[in-house]
Amino acid sequence: MPDQHSNSDPERENPHHSSHRGNFKQRLWEIIFEAETPAGRVFDIALLWFIGASVIVVMLESIPEFSKKYHDFLIFAEWTFTIAFTLEYLLRIWLVRRPWKYIFSFYGVVDLLSCVPGYVYLISGANSHFAVIRTLRLLRMFRVLKMVGHVRGADVILRGLAASRAKITVFFTAVLIFAILAGTVMYVVESGKEGSQFTSIPISIYYAIVSITTVGYGDVVACSALGKLITALMVLTGYAIIAVPTGIVAGDMVREAMYKDETTDACPGCGVHGHLRDAIYCRKCGEHLDA
Amino acid sequence: MPDQHSNSDPERENPHHSSHRGNFKQRLWEIIFEAETPAGRVFDIALLWFIGASVIVVMLESIPEFSKKYHDFLIFAEWTFTIAFTLEYLLRIWLVRRPWKYIFSFYGVVDLLSCVPGYVYLISGANSHFAVIRTLRLLRMFRVLKMVGHVRGADVILRGLAASRAKITVFFTAVLIFAILAGTVMYVVESGKEGSQFTSIPISIYYAIVSITTVGYGDVVACSALGKLITALMVLTGYAIIAVPTGIVAGDMVREAMYKDETTDACPGCGVHGHLRDAIYCRKCGEHLDA
Amino acid sequence: MPDQHSNSDPERENPHHSSHRGNFKQRLWEIIFEAETPAGRVFDIALLWFIGASVIVVMLESIPEFSKKYHDFLIFAEWTFTIAFTLEYLLRIWLVRRPWKYIFSFYGVVDLLSCVPGYVYLISGANSHFAVIRTLRLLRMFRVLKMVGHVRGADVILRGLAASRAKITVFFTAVLIFAILAGTVMYVVESGKEGSQFTSIPISIYYAIVSITTVGYGDVVACSALGKLITALMVLTGYAIIAVPTGIVAGDMVREAMYKDETTDACPGCGVHGHLRDAIYCRKCGEHLDA
Amino acid sequence: MPDQHSNSDPERENPHHSSHRGNFKQRLWEIIFEAETPAGRVFDIALLWFIGASVIVVMLESIPEFSKKYHDFLIFAEWTFTIAFTLEYLLRIWLVRRPWKYIFSFYGVVDLLSCVPGYVYLISGANSHFAVIRTLRLLRMFRVLKMVGHVRGADVILRGLAASRAKITVFFTAVLIFAILAGTVMYVVESGKEGSQFTSIPISIYYAIVSITTVGYGDVVACSALGKLITALMVLTGYAIIAVPTGIVAGDMVREAMYKDETTDACPGCGVHGHLRDAIYCRKCGEHLDA
Repeated sequence: MPDQHSNSDPERENPHHSSHRGNFKQRLWEIIFEAETPAGRVFDIALLWFIGASVIVVMLESIPEFSKKYHDFLIFAEWTFTIAFTLEYLLRIWLVRRPWKYIFSFYGVVDLLSCVPGYVYLISGANSHFAVIRTLRLLRMFRVLKMVGHVRGADVILRGLAASRAKITVFFTAVLIFAILAGTVMYVVESGKEGSQFTSIPISIYYAIVSITTVGYGDVVACSALGKLITALMVLTGYAIIAVPTGIVAGDMVREAMYKDETTDACPGCGVHGHLRDAIYCRKCGEHLDA
Repeated sequence: MPDQHSNSDPERENPHHSSHRGNFKQRLWEIIFEAETPAGRVFDIALLWFIGASVIVVMLESIPEFSKKYHDFLIFAEWTFTIAFTLEYLLRIWLVRRPWKYIFSFYGVVDLLSCVPGYVYLISGANSHFAVIRTLRLLRMFRVLKMVGHVRGADVILRGLAASRAKITVFFTAVLIFAILAGTVMYVVESGKEGSQFTSIPISIYYAIVSITTVGYGDVVACSALGKLITALMVLTGYAIIAVPTGIVAGDMVREAMYKDETTDACPGCGVHGHLRDAIYCRKCGEHLDA
Repeated sequence: MPDQHSNSDPERENPHHSSHRGNFKQRLWEIIFEAETPAGRVFDIALLWFIGASVIVVMLESIPEFSKKYHDFLIFAEWTFTIAFTLEYLLRIWLVRRPWKYIFSFYGVVDLLSCVPGYVYLISGANSHFAVIRTLRLLRMFRVLKMVGHVRGADVILRGLAASRAKITVFFTAVLIFAILAGTVMYVVESGKEGSQFTSIPISIYYAIVSITTVGYGDVVACSALGKLITALMVLTGYAIIAVPTGIVAGDMVREAMYKDETTDACPGCGVHGHLRDAIYCRKCGEHLDA
Repeated sequence: MPDQHSNSDPERENPHHSSHRGNFKQRLWEIIFEAETPAGRVFDIALLWFIGASVIVVMLESIPEFSKKYHDFLIFAEWTFTIAFTLEYLLRIWLVRRPWKYIFSFYGVVDLLSCVPGYVYLISGANSHFAVIRTLRLLRMFRVLKMVGHVRGADVILRGLAASRAKITVFFTAVLIFAILAGTVMYVVESGKEGSQFTSIPISIYYAIVSITTVGYGDVVACSALGKLITALMVLTGYAIIAVPTGIVAGDMVREAMYKDETTDACPGCGVHGHLRDAIYCRKCGEHLDA
């Protein structure tokens, strides 16, 4: 997950802006980038509501009946959000010390894509249904990612997921290889039958993945007795495989809890740290830790 | 989960009711609010059976064939339960020291809603099918919540859920944001096709949530090859996300278990720690631990 | 799960059978009840194969095409198994010291039900399709439970399930109460619509349980937008509830592992046990443990 | 999972090949079997891409439209992969010290099956649709197993699964026995009804397994009220059973984590244990641990 606007640099260097025009810029900077001042907090919360509201408007607009009935309201909301996000985007570029870095950052691109398709849509006539424009406009849904930073504890889950990235990759590959083999076997068994839904290996692999993860839509289903038997075995084996990531996460959580038993203090003699809470002497040089 | 009738205050202050009329009130109070006396236990168990029976009657009444066939019995049961719960409600108001606090408490409202719609229904003619009355009557199903307090160990789960409320909120938000993005992508990929079930973004998000949580009804299903590919990736990614809450709960349970049996105190003689809760002498040097 | 034939008593008292006829009985007893002697092991394995084969025959017989085609073979197999299990049943009654206790034990009833319906079926003509007889004959499937005792490690899972019985009850009740409330809400929201599948509260509760446990058959499905929204919330909330039993089991497994850190030796001074592995002095009386 | 080509022997004995012709063989051996030299690494990565590409080609070929449209390209790809894998197979036989051991090893058979069906298919005319040939050709999908060895961390999962093999067997048997009983009960309840999908016990057991593992395709579904009630109970009970393997894996992971960082040795001075693996001095009394 990319970091928030990579504004750590401007933050530290900001006090150096001290021209008379810089005072106004400084004030704006505090409002937009900082969350400690009252004005900054108000701006943050207002932005969150704007993002939430704009995402809901895009959702509602996709419902045909709603789109027809409240056409004028949606055009109005569209203009409001587009102008607001454009203003925010331009202000961020103006205020940030290294604009290009922001523009090409993940959130910079998300911010840009939040405004541009709105203008294209509004100018080209709101009724035009060019697939490309519609698709680009939906990219505004990615603004929802900006809300992640504001959820307390989200960093714990993100860090947790990042820490077990390697394990998740292994798990992905394991499930994929198992699904490829199981899907092929299902294709061999089921494909010949009349009215069979296993028309190709990729669809059989889709069936295998949907079965192993216990989703089971039921859009593709085994018809023959042998196919049902293999499905039953596959589902049970898949369950054993899929119990592993849950176990890994649980194990990591406990291990993390156990390391809270170690102090962060270093030994005054040799500088080694990671001592257990009840340690009196350094485990490396034998020196008294309180000395 | 709200606490049981918030009757902790009356319970402590009760001995002060000692007028001659108060003796009868006192007796009733013991029956209705206390579970230690034989009469109180009988009342509690009778109430549980009444709640269970009334909930089952409401359920059966909703089955059209049953409702027609046993119409008279259901009217009779309706009267019995309504009168019984009204009596209980009035007694509770009379006995509790601070009636208004009870009336506006969660269970007070549930108790009131257990009686009133019954009268409206019975008086307005049991055949009237005004949607509002039917809906209000079904609120009596909330009486089932009163049974929670009588399940041994329920408080453990409730406390566990309350303790990890923050984590559950984060998890909810994470799944929602992931579902919004995945749903939007599915909408872009699938919506154009003929006969597609992805008619709007909200339905696509519903599909994403149903897929990520591995429910997979199959009422909305990807038709295109690309949609199936994205679904497979989404389901696998979702599984990794969803392993987290299980891991968190497991980790919390283990952490709790680890710190429950051993004290954190060290032996005054040799400094060894990790003594069992009931230890009197140090297991290493034999010294008295309280010295 | 009931214990294996409650044959602990006869086993201990067996050496006392020492008449000359008792020698033959003793020999048979060893074959049927003991697994240490070669003959006993052969009998055990043969019985397992017989049970497995008889269960498979019952399964195959239920397939209409198979039943017609291999009618004669099935009648033959039926006679073989019925006679074999009758013989085993009679021998067990004859050999066991307290026959009535065996007859009314769980496995005694299972053994009886393994033979009787076979005779009724075979004598009344194998083509008679009286529902009662068919149902009774299927009770023979319960013989499969006899295989549990022969799976190594099965006792660990059974003991684990027994230990967390209280927690599982709580979990059951919690899910049920949640499902009753969620089902009622779904019924209120969905039942009015034309073509709705939520025709009664019990079906709505069935829908809620199938959704909360992430099974999601898709036979009952929300049609309205509000119903889909409530379903999404219910599924997510249900997932949080359902993460709890997994966490509890994991926690119990770890706790069990931790108690392996305690010795089973008692203190020579005061008889207290449950000392940690590294304990030198008793934690209760301070006496040296090796004394 | 079988080990990679069982080439540990040749690797150790290889330096002894030192004839002038052996120099070339030695060079080839390094390229094909070793991953440390640059040429070896290039070969490994090229092989991985070849396997991946050939698996994708087999998948695409199974899609009827694709197969017709890109017929010539697929024939060309088929020839390329078949020749490449034949070359690799022959080289491996020539280079390995004990060719027969390789030929009859798991990967040897997979390698052989990767080439032979290709020739049969290409020579007999690519349009022939003999079921046997098609099935044999799909065996090439097993080449995907060769990718397992190249996934970092895969060995952890494989070892984890191997370690809990006994537990997984127990779990399999437990679910099977429960599914057999639940399926039989469902068959008794549902089979009589008109239009019922429970046409035989095996299909009912399939329904039970699909329900217990929370897959729930919805192709077989309970129609009667009693069937729905039993399904709800079965799903809940099944969930309790199925929480066990996840708990076991989690418990094993934690246990492993707990015993990894601390030694079981006690300090020779004061007897304290639970020292970190890198400890040289006791954390309690400062004495040297090796004394």
